[in-house]
Amino acid sequence: MAKNIKTEYNDLGLGTKTSSGSFRSLNKDGTFNVKKTNVPFLERINFFHSLITMPWLHFFGLIVSGYLIANILFAFIYLIIGVEHLTGINALSVSGKFIEAFFFSAQTITTLGYGRVAPVGILANCIAAIESLLGLLAFALATGLLYGRFSKPSGRIKYSSCAVLAPYQDINAFMFRVVNPQNNQLLEVEVNVSFSMKKENSELRDFYSLELERNKIVFFPYMWTIVHPINEASPLFKLKEAEMLARNAEFIVMMKAFDESFSQTVYSRSSYKASEIKWGEKFVYLVKWEEEGVSVDVGKIDETEKVKLN
Amino acid sequence: MAKNIKTEYNDLGLGTKTSSGSFRSLNKDGTFNVKKTNVPFLERINFFHSLITMPWLHFFGLIVSGYLIANILFAFIYLIIGVEHLTGINALSVSGKFIEAFFFSAQTITTLGYGRVAPVGILANCIAAIESLLGLLAFALATGLLYGRFSKPSGRIKYSSCAVLAPYQDINAFMFRVVNPQNNQLLEVEVNVSFSMKKENSELRDFYSLELERNKIVFFPYMWTIVHPINEASPLFKLKEAEMLARNAEFIVMMKAFDESFSQTVYSRSSYKASEIKWGEKFVYLVKWEEEGVSVDVGKIDETEKVKLN
Amino acid sequence: MAKNIKTEYNDLGLGTKTSSGSFRSLNKDGTFNVKKTNVPFLERINFFHSLITMPWLHFFGLIVSGYLIANILFAFIYLIIGVEHLTGINALSVSGKFIEAFFFSAQTITTLGYGRVAPVGILANCIAAIESLLGLLAFALATGLLYGRFSKPSGRIKYSSCAVLAPYQDINAFMFRVVNPQNNQLLEVEVNVSFSMKKENSELRDFYSLELERNKIVFFPYMWTIVHPINEASPLFKLKEAEMLARNAEFIVMMKAFDESFSQTVYSRSSYKASEIKWGEKFVYLVKWEEEGVSVDVGKIDETEKVKLN
Amino acid sequence: MAKNIKTEYNDLGLGTKTSSGSFRSLNKDGTFNVKKTNVPFLERINFFHSLITMPWLHFFGLIVSGYLIANILFAFIYLIIGVEHLTGINALSVSGKFIEAFFFSAQTITTLGYGRVAPVGILANCIAAIESLLGLLAFALATGLLYGRFSKPSGRIKYSSCAVLAPYQDINAFMFRVVNPQNNQLLEVEVNVSFSMKKENSELRDFYSLELERNKIVFFPYMWTIVHPINEASPLFKLKEAEMLARNAEFIVMMKAFDESFSQTVYSRSSYKASEIKWGEKFVYLVKWEEEGVSVDVGKIDETEKVKLN
Repeated sequence: MAKNIKTEYNDLGLGTKTSSGSFRSLNKDGTFNVKKTNVPFLERINFFHSLITMPWLHFFGLIVSGYLIANILFAFIYLIIGVEHLTGINALSVSGKFIEAFFFSAQTITTLGYGRVAPVGILANCIAAIESLLGLLAFALATGLLYGRFSKPSGRIKYSSCAVLAPYQDINAFMFRVVNPQNNQLLEVEVNVSFSMKKENSELRDFYSLELERNKIVFFPYMWTIVHPINEASPLFKLKEAEMLARNAEFIVMMKAFDESFSQTVYSRSSYKASEIKWGEKFVYLVKWEEEGVSVDVGKIDETEKVKLN
Repeated sequence: MAKNIKTEYNDLGLGTKTSSGSFRSLNKDGTFNVKKTNVPFLERINFFHSLITMPWLHFFGLIVSGYLIANILFAFIYLIIGVEHLTGINALSVSGKFIEAFFFSAQTITTLGYGRVAPVGILANCIAAIESLLGLLAFALATGLLYGRFSKPSGRIKYSSCAVLAPYQDINAFMFRVVNPQNNQLLEVEVNVSFSMKKENSELRDFYSLELERNKIVFFPYMWTIVHPINEASPLFKLKEAEMLARNAEFIVMMKAFDESFSQTVYSRSSYKASEIKWGEKFVYLVKWEEEGVSVDVGKIDETEKVKLN
Repeated sequence: MAKNIKTEYNDLGLGTKTSSGSFRSLNKDGTFNVKKTNVPFLERINFFHSLITMPWLHFFGLIVSGYLIANILFAFIYLIIGVEHLTGINALSVSGKFIEAFFFSAQTITTLGYGRVAPVGILANCIAAIESLLGLLAFALATGLLYGRFSKPSGRIKYSSCAVLAPYQDINAFMFRVVNPQNNQLLEVEVNVSFSMKKENSELRDFYSLELERNKIVFFPYMWTIVHPINEASPLFKLKEAEMLARNAEFIVMMKAFDESFSQTVYSRSSYKASEIKWGEKFVYLVKWEEEGVSVDVGKIDETEKVKLN
Repeated sequence: MAKNIKTEYNDLGLGTKTSSGSFRSLNKDGTFNVKKTNVPFLERINFFHSLITMPWLHFFGLIVSGYLIANILFAFIYLIIGVEHLTGINALSVSGKFIEAFFFSAQTITTLGYGRVAPVGILANCIAAIESLLGLLAFALATGLLYGRFSKPSGRIKYSSCAVLAPYQDINAFMFRVVNPQNNQLLEVEVNVSFSMKKENSELRDFYSLELERNKIVFFPYMWTIVHPINEASPLFKLKEAEMLARNAEFIVMMKAFDESFSQTVYSRSSYKASEIKWGEKFVYLVKWEEEGVSVDVGKIDETEKVKLN
């Protein structure tokens, strides 16, 4: 009884009530199918999070736009106070003056300062002094974010696209496998697999934490097949494929590891829906022991072969 | 007996002696009502802590003031050694010379260096060489702090403004709820709730650690209602509302989570006084299961409705 | 027996063999009385560690020296290739030329670049291009270290200068107290106290881990008195003051906490020798409960008063 | 039985199947003898990991090459748009113009900007404005990586080059020793030793986790001898030297510690093959207790002496 309560509530924080909707709660890329509404803007917004996670193209677009807008703004200001306060400007037309002011601004904001064009007098000098201060601060943020994005652990663990239900010792087991495609070492890798399924004759869902053959490895140099043996204690015990599909089952995976290159803890999430499980197939063994070392054919991570279930 | 000792001392570090003062020991914003006196200045001061936690307006004020003061200082120095050692200065009045020296200093400290005004001779060159070195170092600190502030995990978990005392299974429970209003993932969220109350007929306080229905979730995508069931083991067992108020009760909450955007552990604290607990109310359920995903109405986190207690 | 082995080996890594020398193994400032000899230079040296832990005066001295030396070096190079390749140099004497080259170098290495003096021709331009690259890289290291030093958690926990042996319930206890003099929050503070003493009639030492009344607190807003009750299981049971002195006893303390300002785990170490323990004294209580909050008189952390031992 | 399963699977993640190849699975430097094949380029590549772990010479080579290539590229662009848009260029030949454009580019990309050569007109100014922006961003990455490399914990724990099989109490034990040659403190040091050996009459391998006399120390000021006592429970019990060699045994070591200078967790790995174990030798004791402290002769870490086994 006590144990029952524990497993029922071991829902990883995804809640125990749910409709029979067929969407997945956790997407393959680790994001959740959740929309938060009516959050006040100031509570919702997290500039750092947005700037660190947006696509690279958007990030560079933002920097270039910011650079352009700042220079246009300051060019207008120099134009308003009069470009006669800048030495070396030869243009006579307004547009010509604006363009020269724009480039003077660019030379100021980057602290380049050729000096062919230079401010004379209090007003122009003031604007230039302010602009160079702003430039230093703004570029500190931009370049800090650039390096922050670059040095952010990616934790790109690669999951097999499908899971399998294969024989294991004298019973069967639910299995999927993962590989670290990169050369950075992941250490002390932990995995946590949770299983959710609609209750019979109800709109509610049950959540179970699955017992694994191993839930932690110290090193992760090759490939790791994560195995949940389906014994009497398993919520999958005697569950048929059709029922799993009908009850809209979902396996939710969380992995945690220490990434040695980044000296940081990284997390990875994924999920398998009932339709992504191959019954009666097993993974092809990919590790080859050669004369001078081990070789793993990562390209074949999804390869399975037919096998008779127990 | 052994257990008694344990719960009595499980005071989170807030001490077991206390007056009957009605102040809260932990403020809503996570700071403590503590004043440390007679701490020698050098032991007390922590520049980094101050600079990283002060309001943004103060921080920018400090940078701008520092910039102004440094330039005024160096302008005076250039004035003292004589602006004739700077090329391109046309001003004849002292104030005019000071202003030109001020802007030359600004161009030097930011390493802008237009060169329209430039130092000639040993003395002026020396000052300029020192100023540019100082400028590089000072701006490194300023921009480092700017980025440090910007990239500091905010951990803004939003707490319901009130807690409730609501029915739970066939008993009652103390409940409050929290939400992460932002889009950054909080993982492995742990909560720790402690309860303190004046002893009967004494100025001293008892502290208890409260047993929770769950004290850890792996994911935190929606909203989390933290539940302390009031069973026979609970210090709240048979406690009435009036007594709780009279004995000046306080619930102290600490949450701990891993913030994935910042790759750091974050902490959050809050508290509920007896007067912030609604007896006989329950939280309105806010998670909606729509066709394409889940939707949570965060704006209604404080919404409760009347309910009959067990 | 099993327990005996455990406590005997619970030596924190300080070894079980030791002479009867009267030096302390752990100094008050957290460093160890250890000299490592015959370590090859390349294995021993850790530039980062040295640069991050050296006194501030040394650090700034190093930066200024580096700046001077680099400029002197480059000034010589410009002198050797001929200052006629630099525009705007008016000096005729070698020393005058050297000085002008020196300041040109300073303007180049800081990327200031006034341009009054500027390189002409391949050779001078080459040197200047190399110098500005070196300048950018060197200043990146210097300013990175500057900010790294500034943002390094100091973890300045203040220990009472002496420990006491005071009555506790119906027995006695070994006690000392600590305070966080700063305003940054230390969370989840853990303490570990170990006791070492020469064996009777032997040059070897015994090490014991001491059981504490509490070894962890969640918050640390006030002051914490760490208490080891001297019951039958304690290695201090029936130990007299004279024997403790004769057997050269030492209490070794390690504290660990999460510093919220720095978002990092910090460690602190200290030790008490037998001569730093006041027998039959207790700490004066320093927390005052005032109308609007709590006040702690940190300046009196060392204050004790006579008390009768049990 | 249950225990058997546990030890068999306690393989640290190195797999349980293996050929009888004589290569080591873990190299002395902590890398693995693994080749991952058929990994798509975009999944495999991790620029940050490569740039942070490549040798210093390669890293500086890359920076210098990047600087040269960028300047050559921009020099060509200025040449194409016509160097008449740059003031102060005196060269008449194409090569001379290219060289002057190259140095102008260097002055722009480092934001040095002497201004002797300066852009005039829209086109040249545009290129210069873009180049200075690129320069700021590229140097932010380069200098960030430079500091990142410099401040990366090295965790250089030094292992004795051989392990020994020496008497221990009334049995024997497998021992090796480690030292931290540097002055930075390593705290809370944990060690994990695993033993692998070919099965008798099979190509498969058994993996065992070895029970250690101590697997964690709080401080690590001197030297640490890690001891696995060979009692009845040990997989080494009654194993002879010849058999260990024949069955291609390997001891795999992982250490984990908190490096106080870097405020980070560091990992270290090493391994001992059967041929690197000296039977019937013991380590010479290297810690000397002098008047003013302890002295450890790190240079003799590998020194052993003959001893009779139990």
